[in-house]
Amino acid sequence: MAILGELGTEILIPVCGVIGIVFAVAQWFIVSKVKVTPGAASAAAGAKNGYGDYLIEEEEGLNDHNVVVKCAEIQTAISEGATSFLFTMYQYVGMFMVVFAAIIFLFLGSIEGFSTKGQPCTYSKGTCKPALYTALFSTASFLLGAITSLVSGFLGMKIATYANARTTLEARKGVGKAFITAFRSGAVMGFLLSSSGLVVLYITINVFKMYYGDDWEGLFESITGYGLGGSSMALFGRVGGGIYTKAADVGADLVGKVERNIPEDDPRNPAVIADNVGDNVGDIAGMGSDLFGSYAESSCAALVVASISSFGINHDFTAMCYPLLVSSVGIIVCLLTTLFATDFFEIKAANEIEPALKKQLIISTALMTVGVAVISWLALPAKFTIFNFGAQKEVSNWGLFFCVAVGLWAGLIIGFVTEYYTSNAYSPVQDVADSCRTGAATNVIFGLALGYKSVINPIFAIAVSIYVSFSIAAMYGIAMAALGMLSTMATGLAIDAYGPISDNAGGIAEMAGMSHRIRERTDALDAAGNTTAAIGKGFAIGSAALVSLALFGAFVSRAGVKVVDVLSPKVFIGLIVGAMLPYWFSAMTMKSVGSAALKMVEEVRRQFNTIPGLMEGTAKPDYATCVKISTDASIKEMIPPGALVMLTPLIVGTLFGVETLSGVLAGALVSGVQIAISASNTGGAWDNAKKYIEAGNSEHARSLGPKGSDCHKAAVIGDTIGDPLKDTSGPSLNILIKLMAVESLVFAPFFATYGGLLFKYI
Amino acid sequence: MAILGELGTEILIPVCGVIGIVFAVAQWFIVSKVKVTPGAASAAAGAKNGYGDYLIEEEEGLNDHNVVVKCAEIQTAISEGATSFLFTMYQYVGMFMVVFAAIIFLFLGSIEGFSTKGQPCTYSKGTCKPALYTALFSTASFLLGAITSLVSGFLGMKIATYANARTTLEARKGVGKAFITAFRSGAVMGFLLSSSGLVVLYITINVFKMYYGDDWEGLFESITGYGLGGSSMALFGRVGGGIYTKAADVGADLVGKVERNIPEDDPRNPAVIADNVGDNVGDIAGMGSDLFGSYAESSCAALVVASISSFGINHDFTAMCYPLLVSSVGIIVCLLTTLFATDFFEIKAANEIEPALKKQLIISTALMTVGVAVISWLALPAKFTIFNFGAQKEVSNWGLFFCVAVGLWAGLIIGFVTEYYTSNAYSPVQDVADSCRTGAATNVIFGLALGYKSVINPIFAIAVSIYVSFSIAAMYGIAMAALGMLSTMATGLAIDAYGPISDNAGGIAEMAGMSHRIRERTDALDAAGNTTAAIGKGFAIGSAALVSLALFGAFVSRAGVKVVDVLSPKVFIGLIVGAMLPYWFSAMTMKSVGSAALKMVEEVRRQFNTIPGLMEGTAKPDYATCVKISTDASIKEMIPPGALVMLTPLIVGTLFGVETLSGVLAGALVSGVQIAISASNTGGAWDNAKKYIEAGNSEHARSLGPKGSDCHKAAVIGDTIGDPLKDTSGPSLNILIKLMAVESLVFAPFFATYGGLLFKYI
Repeated sequence: MAILGELGTEILIPVCGVIGIVFAVAQWFIVSKVKVTPGAASAAAGAKNGYGDYLIEEEEGLNDHNVVVKCAEIQTAISEGATSFLFTMYQYVGMFMVVFAAIIFLFLGSIEGFSTKGQPCTYSKGTCKPALYTALFSTASFLLGAITSLVSGFLGMKIATYANARTTLEARKGVGKAFITAFRSGAVMGFLLSSSGLVVLYITINVFKMYYGDDWEGLFESITGYGLGGSSMALFGRVGGGIYTKAADVGADLVGKVERNIPEDDPRNPAVIADNVGDNVGDIAGMGSDLFGSYAESSCAALVVASISSFGINHDFTAMCYPLLVSSVGIIVCLLTTLFATDFFEIKAANEIEPALKKQLIISTALMTVGVAVISWLALPAKFTIFNFGAQKEVSNWGLFFCVAVGLWAGLIIGFVTEYYTSNAYSPVQDVADSCRTGAATNVIFGLALGYKSVINPIFAIAVSIYVSFSIAAMYGIAMAALGMLSTMATGLAIDAYGPISDNAGGIAEMAGMSHRIRERTDALDAAGNTTAAIGKGFAIGSAALVSLALFGAFVSRAGVKVVDVLSPKVFIGLIVGAMLPYWFSAMTMKSVGSAALKMVEEVRRQFNTIPGLMEGTAKPDYATCVKISTDASIKEMIPPGALVMLTPLIVGTLFGVETLSGVLAGALVSGVQIAISASNTGGAWDNAKKYIEAGNSEHARSLGPKGSDCHKAAVIGDTIGDPLKDTSGPSLNILIKLMAVESLVFAPFFATYGGLLFKYI
Repeated sequence: MAILGELGTEILIPVCGVIGIVFAVAQWFIVSKVKVTPGAASAAAGAKNGYGDYLIEEEEGLNDHNVVVKCAEIQTAISEGATSFLFTMYQYVGMFMVVFAAIIFLFLGSIEGFSTKGQPCTYSKGTCKPALYTALFSTASFLLGAITSLVSGFLGMKIATYANARTTLEARKGVGKAFITAFRSGAVMGFLLSSSGLVVLYITINVFKMYYGDDWEGLFESITGYGLGGSSMALFGRVGGGIYTKAADVGADLVGKVERNIPEDDPRNPAVIADNVGDNVGDIAGMGSDLFGSYAESSCAALVVASISSFGINHDFTAMCYPLLVSSVGIIVCLLTTLFATDFFEIKAANEIEPALKKQLIISTALMTVGVAVISWLALPAKFTIFNFGAQKEVSNWGLFFCVAVGLWAGLIIGFVTEYYTSNAYSPVQDVADSCRTGAATNVIFGLALGYKSVINPIFAIAVSIYVSFSIAAMYGIAMAALGMLSTMATGLAIDAYGPISDNAGGIAEMAGMSHRIRERTDALDAAGNTTAAIGKGFAIGSAALVSLALFGAFVSRAGVKVVDVLSPKVFIGLIVGAMLPYWFSAMTMKSVGSAALKMVEEVRRQFNTIPGLMEGTAKPDYATCVKISTDASIKEMIPPGALVMLTPLIVGTLFGVETLSGVLAGALVSGVQIAISASNTGGAWDNAKKYIEAGNSEHARSLGPKGSDCHKAAVIGDTIGDPLKDTSGPSLNILIKLMAVESLVFAPFFATYGGLLFKYI
């Protein structure tokens, strides 16, 4: 038996969760000390503010009172726009939730003909609970996962909109202060999400256990609904939010930057508020739901495999909770890591930001490696067996440590490769910028080539982690590798959320008419944010690949499939059609962004043409119409891609059966991960190539600029094309591959019983 | 036994082959009647030319003599440039051939330690020939395939350059005459290639049989080298030619059309000859080698599977030759089909061209269905068994007919879907053209979305053919479906080669300073040519998918693998890495085109800036330097992608073994086919969106134009981006997936004996 007793586990997990939540609240408290109410701010400026610093760096003689009022106004507009969009979306998503919950209940309940009698267990001895009740609990955990995901996204958005104006105001005191405000706000989101995900899952398990008792097979089967709920909300969040943000962004840029030659985030641009709202609903709420979904799914995948392994059969609670214990340790490790950025060191210059964020990744990975070693030694027996497609495989605790560690380090490698290909400090982005000399076409050709190339190393990293963890502990190993990659999620989310917050801070500075110097500082924050956003997407994709493979393995186990043979026609057609789905999905989302952007362009043009004094700054644009266009377009357009992802597993499983569905899942996984990585990195590279030319920090960069030159115009075109790739299609594909896998897992017993109708009757 | 006796087969196949060759020569003869020597042409114009038509339509009062001289000059320049490039390429490729032939001999010879003793057969009874001799014959057939491929490509290029000026001159008499000249020239290539491929393969089999006698296993194993040879040459042809043509095209467009605002193919543009040379070496020679490779490979795949099925074991020669018989019937069917375009109907207006070409596809498919039914009834026994991964599967002759037919009709569907997405007669391309209103960025976003979307139906068509033919006759069925798709290859190649010939004809008209009206006619030919080129690529990709699956199946059979289980880590890492290879490959080829184009741009700019009187047309540009830049760049840049494709199977097979290699092949296939389709169609759509705006044939099109408008400029950017996608990366990917499969097949015995070193020693 493990060193850590059952009581120890029962204490450790909730305590770590609570510590994470308390830490998040503490960070929020610190951020909230920056006042955006003018009276208080002026008073603070007059006396001392929370940090005890005078606003000595603010030298431009701006009217401090007016600036603060303006920032507060803009913040309110952004926050209201985001809240109203999310509530509109939640209405539609709520209907979907109810319908889908009914489907889950009916499909799963029907397996034993809605019988209320217990059945013999599949893997362990004894009688297990009836399918009807498992259907009920699955439905409940689905709803719970969905609600947790929505709340996570919503809180993330609230935190971000709370933080953006504060970051702008802090930028007056220097880049270090602004950085720390943005970063702390990111940390609030990171810790809140990862801790609450853990706590809710832990409570759910304990509550469900009161009914299930010793039937752990049924217990953890019903828990998989939690992952499905989380991920399906993430899908709508990512797709809807992604369309919203990019329709606004592309629309604003095409008229503002290209036609009217006004700067980004200029308050005269009618789409500017919609653009800033988009950053919060797309990048923040979407990313939050996405990573929460990955976390929930990989935990569920690990738990469901463990429940039919020796842990589950022998009812070893501590070992069973190993996935949750790894996440708990992760929270503590990330907490320590955060202190390195916020308390142990101080950022003084703009060029220290990117290294500081990179250090966060390295420190958290290094510390976590130690943490995993300790918890593996404490929580696992020295030897145990893991279910491996019909057989049991012997594994040691050190082997499992190795699985988690390989995932953790693969994540770091993916992060660094992504940084190399998307940061303008290295040659790939500089080459792309250079290709703008010959116009937009070569910029696009080089950018696409860069994205394709950036796939190579992450895929090797993922392949090695898969091989190692698969060889050691079959699908449980893969699930633990995924959890390893996600164990430093709090830090990952913090540096990830930091990006859009900085982006918004810059937007607010521009809109509030703050000085050029302030804008330069927020731009420096934002450039680092672009890279960290790409790194975050790299993490999200890498972990999604591992998670969906783990879910796929769990599905195959639950569906009783022993072999998925490519040489069987049923599997092969699944494989090739599955590999096509990411293209279909991307076609829908890209086209949606394009059409919505066209509408936005027309509206913005209309306003510029019909509102007198708008270009001169004497009249105010009608921001609300633009917000409405983005909202309507994204709600309408998120339905077809959502339906594609949600219906495919149901249709394929019911009509073609579990073998073809296995092929579809494998095909979508191996194809989707490539497009997702290349789309994110291409987009990130174009964005930073443009920023490289704008910043003009080197001889080479200056030869391409300045803003408004032909090179810069070509770079803006690339950036615009990259927008839907990096913020809509690319990141949504993670969810496509995960969601189809988790949905298949939840419905596995149904497909195994009734699936393959078409082949049966033809 | 079959109705058709062995003697009948021995007669039928060569007779059909010879008929095809004679028909090709006859078409050439007709084309050659159009004289490009000014004296004869003037005389013909003065008296009557071969068709008995006066040049009544030529009314612009151009000096006929001068025009003809100019056309002849330009034709010579293009032909010389193309010949010189191909010879340079063949020197490098020749070295590769020698080295690779040595590798084949050494690797395959080593299997039984270079022993000269016979060994017991694997599948049939009795003693088979020693591996050493099979190595020798495989090497010989590799060289033969390679040489046939090179000759095919070279002849195709010669025919095309012979035809282009003649098409231009015929355009003076009207669009119908020009069409028929271009189409006949395409037919020369189509029939010559498909017939000579058949005849050479047939002779090789008969010659090898003199040594092998009753050892058909060894005989058809050694024949697979023919496919490998054909395909490896096609790789270099496609990649080298693709880089050549697009470097020149992109370079010429970026300076000429965008910066200097001179028309396409303007003789003042220094890169214009290189651009026209590129069409011939890339689209013509590359496509010829590619389809020849597909044909050779699918025949080899079918033969090798048949040799270990009841046909081979019972030595039923007629049934064994069924794949060759299907191709023989195909030649006759295509011959009849061609007459519909050249003799039975006449084209009178530009808008009849595309329907006429479409009719070719429909007629050939319909006739071929009948042809296949007849030959299946004549050549196959009513019942027989096919090898199915370790077991034998019973199949009827009608079942096999169904396999061929499903491939044939899937090809037609793919053709029509491709047409729908790339022709500017339908809404997808018109939508893309419309998106140019808001600039290049939306054009690119819509174009990419169109390409992604165009993948859906072809993949379903391929999936259905795979499922049907796989279920009926395992891998033999797939190979026959592929051959079915390729059975109308002569027609497919004819309408495909027609495109670049028309494109060149237009170029020559522009360069020779012929009137606007002539240029309009060649433009109409060219627009239809763009669509047929896209259809041709669709065929090439669809057949490549089936061929490589068939080769994959043959490889798995030869390597003795019974199951390729996705749930094994060895297979899964192969799958995900294999799915990454098309991205790696595309990154290389896209970047190569980009870099070569940059060099070309610099040279063209240099000439415009330093040669006085060039813009005014008083001085001649230095065409030769541009030709040299394209040649050098393409030779240098084709090596890394070539090495990637050729080395991957060798490295993976040797180090990781046949299971991982199976995964790599399946992954590359399911991922590569999607990128190939989307890249071709995106590129084709952009090209035709541009042409749609330029032609201005509708109210909508006119609202976007004219040439030089902002919309048109945005469309040109899209077209330029599409160039490397549709003519370099996309079509090369076919070869990537086929070539890796056929190479694995050839080396299968070696991998099965010595493969997987890394896993053995770790």
